Amino acid sequence: MQKLRIAIVGSSGYTGGELYRILLHHPKAAVTAVTSEKSAGKPISSIFPHLAGLTDLLCEPLDPDGIAKKADFIFLALPHVTAQEAAYRFHKLGKKVVDLSADYRIDDPLLYEKWYEHCHQYPDLLALAVYGLPEVHREKIRKSQLIANPGCYPTSAILGLAPLLKKRMIDHNTIIIDSKSGVSGAGRSPSLPYHYPEANEGLMAYKIGTHRHTPEIEQEISKLAGDQVILNFTPHLVPMNRGILSTIYATMKEQADTGALHELFQDFYRQEPFVRVRPLGQLPNVCNVRGSNFCDIGVCADARTGRVVVVTAIDNLVKGASGQAVQNMNLMAGFEETEGLKFAGLFP
Amino acid sequence: MQKLRIAIVGSSGYTGGELYRILLHHPKAAVTAVTSEKSAGKPISSIFPHLAGLTDLLCEPLDPDGIAKKADFIFLALPHVTAQEAAYRFHKLGKKVVDLSADYRIDDPLLYEKWYEHCHQYPDLLALAVYGLPEVHREKIRKSQLIANPGCYPTSAILGLAPLLKKRMIDHNTIIIDSKSGVSGAGRSPSLPYHYPEANEGLMAYKIGTHRHTPEIEQEISKLAGDQVILNFTPHLVPMNRGILSTIYATMKEQADTGALHELFQDFYRQEPFVRVRPLGQLPNVCNVRGSNFCDIGVCADARTGRVVVVTAIDNLVKGASGQAVQNMNLMAGFEETEGLKFAGLFP
Amino acid sequence: MQKLRIAIVGSSGYTGGELYRILLHHPKAAVTAVTSEKSAGKPISSIFPHLAGLTDLLCEPLDPDGIAKKADFIFLALPHVTAQEAAYRFHKLGKKVVDLSADYRIDDPLLYEKWYEHCHQYPDLLALAVYGLPEVHREKIRKSQLIANPGCYPTSAILGLAPLLKKRMIDHNTIIIDSKSGVSGAGRSPSLPYHYPEANEGLMAYKIGTHRHTPEIEQEISKLAGDQVILNFTPHLVPMNRGILSTIYATMKEQADTGALHELFQDFYRQEPFVRVRPLGQLPNVCNVRGSNFCDIGVCADARTGRVVVVTAIDNLVKGASGQAVQNMNLMAGFEETEGLKFAGLFP
Amino acid sequence: MQKLRIAIVGSSGYTGGELYRILLHHPKAAVTAVTSEKSAGKPISSIFPHLAGLTDLLCEPLDPDGIAKKADFIFLALPHVTAQEAAYRFHKLGKKVVDLSADYRIDDPLLYEKWYEHCHQYPDLLALAVYGLPEVHREKIRKSQLIANPGCYPTSAILGLAPLLKKRMIDHNTIIIDSKSGVSGAGRSPSLPYHYPEANEGLMAYKIGTHRHTPEIEQEISKLAGDQVILNFTPHLVPMNRGILSTIYATMKEQADTGALHELFQDFYRQEPFVRVRPLGQLPNVCNVRGSNFCDIGVCADARTGRVVVVTAIDNLVKGASGQAVQNMNLMAGFEETEGLKFAGLFP
Repeated sequence: MQKLRIAIVGSSGYTGGELYRILLHHPKAAVTAVTSEKSAGKPISSIFPHLAGLTDLLCEPLDPDGIAKKADFIFLALPHVTAQEAAYRFHKLGKKVVDLSADYRIDDPLLYEKWYEHCHQYPDLLALAVYGLPEVHREKIRKSQLIANPGCYPTSAILGLAPLLKKRMIDHNTIIIDSKSGVSGAGRSPSLPYHYPEANEGLMAYKIGTHRHTPEIEQEISKLAGDQVILNFTPHLVPMNRGILSTIYATMKEQADTGALHELFQDFYRQEPFVRVRPLGQLPNVCNVRGSNFCDIGVCADARTGRVVVVTAIDNLVKGASGQAVQNMNLMAGFEETEGLKFAGLFP
Repeated sequence: MQKLRIAIVGSSGYTGGELYRILLHHPKAAVTAVTSEKSAGKPISSIFPHLAGLTDLLCEPLDPDGIAKKADFIFLALPHVTAQEAAYRFHKLGKKVVDLSADYRIDDPLLYEKWYEHCHQYPDLLALAVYGLPEVHREKIRKSQLIANPGCYPTSAILGLAPLLKKRMIDHNTIIIDSKSGVSGAGRSPSLPYHYPEANEGLMAYKIGTHRHTPEIEQEISKLAGDQVILNFTPHLVPMNRGILSTIYATMKEQADTGALHELFQDFYRQEPFVRVRPLGQLPNVCNVRGSNFCDIGVCADARTGRVVVVTAIDNLVKGASGQAVQNMNLMAGFEETEGLKFAGLFP
Repeated sequence: MQKLRIAIVGSSGYTGGELYRILLHHPKAAVTAVTSEKSAGKPISSIFPHLAGLTDLLCEPLDPDGIAKKADFIFLALPHVTAQEAAYRFHKLGKKVVDLSADYRIDDPLLYEKWYEHCHQYPDLLALAVYGLPEVHREKIRKSQLIANPGCYPTSAILGLAPLLKKRMIDHNTIIIDSKSGVSGAGRSPSLPYHYPEANEGLMAYKIGTHRHTPEIEQEISKLAGDQVILNFTPHLVPMNRGILSTIYATMKEQADTGALHELFQDFYRQEPFVRVRPLGQLPNVCNVRGSNFCDIGVCADARTGRVVVVTAIDNLVKGASGQAVQNMNLMAGFEETEGLKFAGLFP
Repeated sequence: MQKLRIAIVGSSGYTGGELYRILLHHPKAAVTAVTSEKSAGKPISSIFPHLAGLTDLLCEPLDPDGIAKKADFIFLALPHVTAQEAAYRFHKLGKKVVDLSADYRIDDPLLYEKWYEHCHQYPDLLALAVYGLPEVHREKIRKSQLIANPGCYPTSAILGLAPLLKKRMIDHNTIIIDSKSGVSGAGRSPSLPYHYPEANEGLMAYKIGTHRHTPEIEQEISKLAGDQVILNFTPHLVPMNRGILSTIYATMKEQADTGALHELFQDFYRQEPFVRVRPLGQLPNVCNVRGSNFCDIGVCADARTGRVVVVTAIDNLVKGASGQAVQNMNLMAGFEETEGLKFAGLFP
């Protein structure tokens, strides 16, 4: 059987490198092209020395027609705005595309424009894009030509809230999402807040109430709630390489105890290959999902306040980006959903 | 002038070491006795090599009568329960005491018993103890013989909420405190969750709804609110040595914008030597308070949800423990409150 | 084809967990038994939550006869001394064994006794054991029943020196090995030097001239040099989870420039699947081997002093322990040497 | 008494900030001017928020005449080459200067040109400059108008070797210095190798045999040895904020045991306020000098190889830069050498 030929467009960032790492071991797909304007002509291992000895592939500049000849399936690991046109071009060339940027995540182009300060150039294509969270939109993903791969924070938030919203357990006006991310979430471009001596032994909240993942979370939460939801989302920067831990608060409509909530979550996610509800009484830790495509979840009822507290842990570069992108590819290509993805994380 | 003679009782933990570091440079006080059962007879620098060359003091076993002859003022850096009796003994010997444990923080002995699973042996003395948060109880502290030095998390939480509560700005049934602490907050006793390869690159919530700082926070918040307050408090463990960042959420009674809230905080804390409200538009980072007695604060209104988000940053071992203890000593001894404490933190 | 059935004896430490992680994806082997006295009866995922969802295997106590019925091939991840007898028992039961402890590494039982302060109980078996560094002893390993899996520091040191020694390029009386290790090398048992706040932002040398890996390094270096070699080996503890970087110094017998040395190393390791000589002018970094079985090498001549400086980087838990153990298993079982091992490391 | 008025020229980097932190508590000196081209007109606390509440000083552009009116004593925390002229200007204006750059460290202008690829513009002034390592050049420093403040690596290397060289204990052709530095040593300008996700969990050697601190070390070592010394110096980058650990190897001329060497070091440094020889059998750790002006030293004889191994630990920003600069100022200004400098480090 011939393997599905894959192009990684924009391969010099962390999600590009992570796509490569994951696809190296995929039994039914193989990377046949990688693009990087800056490193065109150089081996991908010059940008990512951890891939040395595993591939000799050279980077090339982004030429959609040329890439289209070499690849059947396209991952876009480009910055937002740039990704918009690339998605359009590859779509027109008949290629299935998973876009890891935010460009096709927000259904409403005006809302996109408001938060991303850039007018969306391809509203027709936007209308065709599917939000690629398999646990929520699996069947639509299977049939889609263009997937908007979810943001890292939204993945951690939506998976934590979905069971409660679907079961109408919480007052959706009371949702607060307090998220903590490792520094790789900020990308690979050096700047002062991510300079090692500034970020190490540092800890801060940022963009309170203004982070661009807010409308993305609200859009998906609203669909799940069957109602328009406005919520608080606060991201934090934590001195570690990988991982997002989201601590989510909401008021329960009716009191439930931790045991009942735990059962609800277990039932809800029983068939999901990449969601692990922690045993009752245990909470997730990002160290247990590092390098893996799992989302670990814990849930507690606080009888004193009537609130539920959900904690989710993902690797921001895997389930929060490149792993989920491959999960979407598996669905779109008709492969087993877990193909090439059921590897253990790296601990410690 | 003769310096106030200080004993640090229980000097082998991080708060004991930090008391010593701070008091080394205090112009009006000098450590004259340190106790450690395990290291009795050995120099304090054998436990804390960073103090080598600065002191030759030897550790001694805890003998209140003996210590009382050598010291005028006592810091208790003992585990809770153990501290109870030590406080009692030194109090009876006529010494002023700052207790860094939790033993005298909870006004109600039954509430203490419920959360600490130990019956309080000295309820009469408990009734005399003052909760040592100078920004809230300054005048009582000046006259007190026994100070219950606040917990690290409560310090970060109460300072963030005090202005809003005093001004009746928030619905106090909606308070959620999401706190993130460095690992030194767990003390100096090795155990698996704090073993380097487990804690490093790890991040977790713990004791959701059950952490012992909860009743302490609620007690003080209730006083400030003038009403009984029940709230959510979630601690997290973050891979860094020092620092607590608390992100605090509450619903505003009436809409206020960030500018107005910022002004309120600035006014409220204008005279406070150790609270720094960050300039408008800027948020605190624990790296800026590391090693110092400052609490840095930022505040945002979220017009979309009607909530206020306050972020506070302290060094858990300084403003969250030993620095605040010295601040209390300064007040009790009639010194300038800032004496020996207005040093800059260590950055980076 | 039936998979080779594997037992991991002593599975609760980091090397045990890492064996499991690697073997999960091995196409020709499968773990069928894991032992842990402390966690007997509990799932392996209770000790290693990162394995949850990937295995339901329960830990059992170490009963060689019972284990022998379930497994064809044995990995011993036990402390030294304990491993001695276990190796003997499994060997007598006809099982091939890879011992990750130091018990069968030192050819001379008296030298073992001197450095490990314990008399070797099975000198006859010791005589049969092969030192499991495939790049040096590949053919012997293929035929062996018992492999002494090399220590992490020795692996990094020997691979850096082998080309120079084989080609008689250096004065072997001048060898100095300055090694730096991440904290997982100290194992999973908590103790003060590895307590997070002590190890983080800390850096120290330890056991100068007295570390037990010294005789192991000297034994293998002597074989390569064809002469008795005594050398300096200094280990250091570095605040990171994984990785060893060894910086190795020796005086060249005749001057060679960096280009010539680089060519020598490239030629020497050209056929080796797990040694990557970095491109000329580039040096290894542990971040590029993290989680992988690679050893990255760089070499420089210093014309001013006439010395050569070699730098090697490995993951102490993979090429320095469990990955190399699987590489040895592949050789012993007649599999492709790289089977299940050519995965990329995790970066960042 | 009026305080000595200090200018920090080039205050936006880590050494500038650290000078400010230290001088804030100096009893006889006070910072009266700080320069930064980029932040001219803004408060120093906008660059260094940890200084907020402790100073209101505004940055100004570098105008030597203007600065000279406000300050009696000048610290130059500028990049090399830039510092050359600034030193010259302030010297001509009659100001005492401590230059923290490398510009006046290399006695021989041709050697400077060779390593720094820039012709020295002020050889006459260079001839007057004194290398500011008080433990070696104390008396010259007292009388000097211009101090070349030593590099961080050289400080750690020279203090470790001085006793052995002065006592002619080692063969000075055998010296190897293996140094490990925290990331703040690379300065405050973001670039990829210091980007948090690249540096964290990373470890590498760099500039083997070509680092610019090599001629500086050799110059001072040669003076101490009374002979021309060529040596190996290898710097490494370690994932921590502060600290340098140097492990130094040399062959002893005559065998000495560790006890004798320890005594030698103790005697040699007995009067030195900032050098702490660790108790026999103990080795230094950078965590014990963090934030302090101490250099901790340990020494071991290796009878097997006839080599001595010295380990030194400093804080690269304090004894390796700004603390030593203030120590030099104290000597030049006729203050007590330890004035404002005998503070404990920050542990943990």
